[in-house]
Amino acid sequence: MPRKRVISVIGTGTEAEPAVSHARELGRLIAERGWVLVTGGRNAGVMNSASEGARDVEGSLSIGILPDAETEISDAVDVAIVTGTGEARNNVIVLSADVVIACGVDDAGTASEVSLALKAYKPVILVAAGDAAERFFSGIGGENIHIAGTPVDAVAIATRLV
Amino acid sequence: MPRKRVISVIGTGTEAEPAVSHARELGRLIAERGWVLVTGGRNAGVMNSASEGARDVEGSLSIGILPDAETEISDAVDVAIVTGTGEARNNVIVLSADVVIACGVDDAGTASEVSLALKAYKPVILVAAGDAAERFFSGIGGENIHIAGTPVDAVAIATRLV
Amino acid sequence: MPRKRVISVIGTGTEAEPAVSHARELGRLIAERGWVLVTGGRNAGVMNSASEGARDVEGSLSIGILPDAETEISDAVDVAIVTGTGEARNNVIVLSADVVIACGVDDAGTASEVSLALKAYKPVILVAAGDAAERFFSGIGGENIHIAGTPVDAVAIATRLV
Amino acid sequence: MPRKRVISVIGTGTEAEPAVSHARELGRLIAERGWVLVTGGRNAGVMNSASEGARDVEGSLSIGILPDAETEISDAVDVAIVTGTGEARNNVIVLSADVVIACGVDDAGTASEVSLALKAYKPVILVAAGDAAERFFSGIGGENIHIAGTPVDAVAIATRLV
Repeated sequence: MPRKRVISVIGTGTEAEPAVSHARELGRLIAERGWVLVTGGRNAGVMNSASEGARDVEGSLSIGILPDAETEISDAVDVAIVTGTGEARNNVIVLSADVVIACGVDDAGTASEVSLALKAYKPVILVAAGDAAERFFSGIGGENIHIAGTPVDAVAIATRLV
Repeated sequence: MPRKRVISVIGTGTEAEPAVSHARELGRLIAERGWVLVTGGRNAGVMNSASEGARDVEGSLSIGILPDAETEISDAVDVAIVTGTGEARNNVIVLSADVVIACGVDDAGTASEVSLALKAYKPVILVAAGDAAERFFSGIGGENIHIAGTPVDAVAIATRLV
Repeated sequence: MPRKRVISVIGTGTEAEPAVSHARELGRLIAERGWVLVTGGRNAGVMNSASEGARDVEGSLSIGILPDAETEISDAVDVAIVTGTGEARNNVIVLSADVVIACGVDDAGTASEVSLALKAYKPVILVAAGDAAERFFSGIGGENIHIAGTPVDAVAIATRLV
Repeated sequence: MPRKRVISVIGTGTEAEPAVSHARELGRLIAERGWVLVTGGRNAGVMNSASEGARDVEGSLSIGILPDAETEISDAVDVAIVTGTGEARNNVIVLSADVVIACGVDDAGTASEVSLALKAYKPVILVAAGDAAERFFSGIGGENIHIAGTPVDAVAIATRLV
């Protein structure tokens, strides 16, 4: 029995679209493949939506990596890991992943996660991230940056990578 | 569906007895109750033994909280969370737990985990920890320190606490 | 006696120009104003060069925030703070700063520092960072992102901000 | 010019005696030797008192390693390093030290610092720590634990160790 594959889904803590809908679909697709879903664990935005998507799949496992004990946890998270390291928990989210999938990079927190993932030489898939983010991260990430238009595309890329 | 209860089992990375046998039994008992087992994730001592104990129980979940990406991971860990924070990952192990169970406190790493757990007001159960550790930690931990002679005793106490 | 102002200078660990020359000038200018210089502390690139620039100013103080105890420390660092948190130490570098100055953003480590600084609502000054970085970070950082062409410009902006 | 020696002084955040008076004397003695004082930086107990002791010595440098940006900082701290890692910042305090001096070990936070210091093989001097702490930490720390009755004794031991 090998260890389970871990896919981290990252993105905004706001309810911005299409990021939140993409996250829900990604959560479901990841769980259907038998991969463990890791998110930032908060009861908001991409984090919550991805875990909700996974929850509907039998046998799914959704782990939330929380900044601290005060943060409200998504109800769809199965296991909460409380780091106590604030935003530095973003490094835990990416170091624990086989592949990182970003639903947009519209905020500083997600940008830090993509950056830390690239620093650790993890493959990162940007989903509908927009031109400025794609251009910037392709410039510093080289072949570890992958561009996807949809969740289905992203999971197809992830399947090749794991 | 409420979030799963998490019990962290901590102790030496050496193969010292009875700590390692106690850890194996604790891993099994924790998994049988449907609780998630969290350990320090290394392929050594109490960490490895607790995860091996849990592995034999159907539906068990064993999560290892690793110091960094270089550390060898126990084969019995289902999901590896890589913190990148070195020994400070001990704080993640205890902050994520509903109850912390220590199989002896014979080394500095375990002592740091018991201390950090008490600092976070987590209940800690010391199993066969010896007089010096019991006296010292009872002095600073007050009612959050519980003394157990065996794994069965410890799980009985944990059942009351969760 | 108020606490000393802290300016963090960040950038590549390679010897890329003009980043390294800019860092040296920034280190000197920061020290001349009586501010404390904080860097990532390594004996390489922008970190080392900034500390060397500060060292020549009487009464200067240069603090290096290191990822771990194994990293080689710049000889020009006066005090080494060893975090043990790997790349997550980037969050310490920015949280400790009144102002963050980036000598280019050509690598994932620096991008994570700029991102984490913006997440913490710290002012960030980009020096000769290039179009892709300026466009991306202005988009997510809003008014906390400042654009400078030279070290002198950057320190003029910093003087207004502290 | 070699890097400055760093001595970390740790202990309770309460105003317990003799810990707080010992800390004040230690701060002064450390500063007089030209060593950098590192503490947990809070405006309370041993941390504040040690920094106040150092402040009266010309040319002294007192660095506070804070858990987060919300913590109230001692007025006697010259430079505040904000870690954002909560109690895990205790590991930064000890990893940055050449020698760690504990003014009593009466609380869980200080116990975690002594433990983490021993885990990192740092020399630790216990000042008037009492029998239970001395016995427990001597048992797990071996030759890295030193016992002192007074601040003057502690600094004499530290002088041999640095």
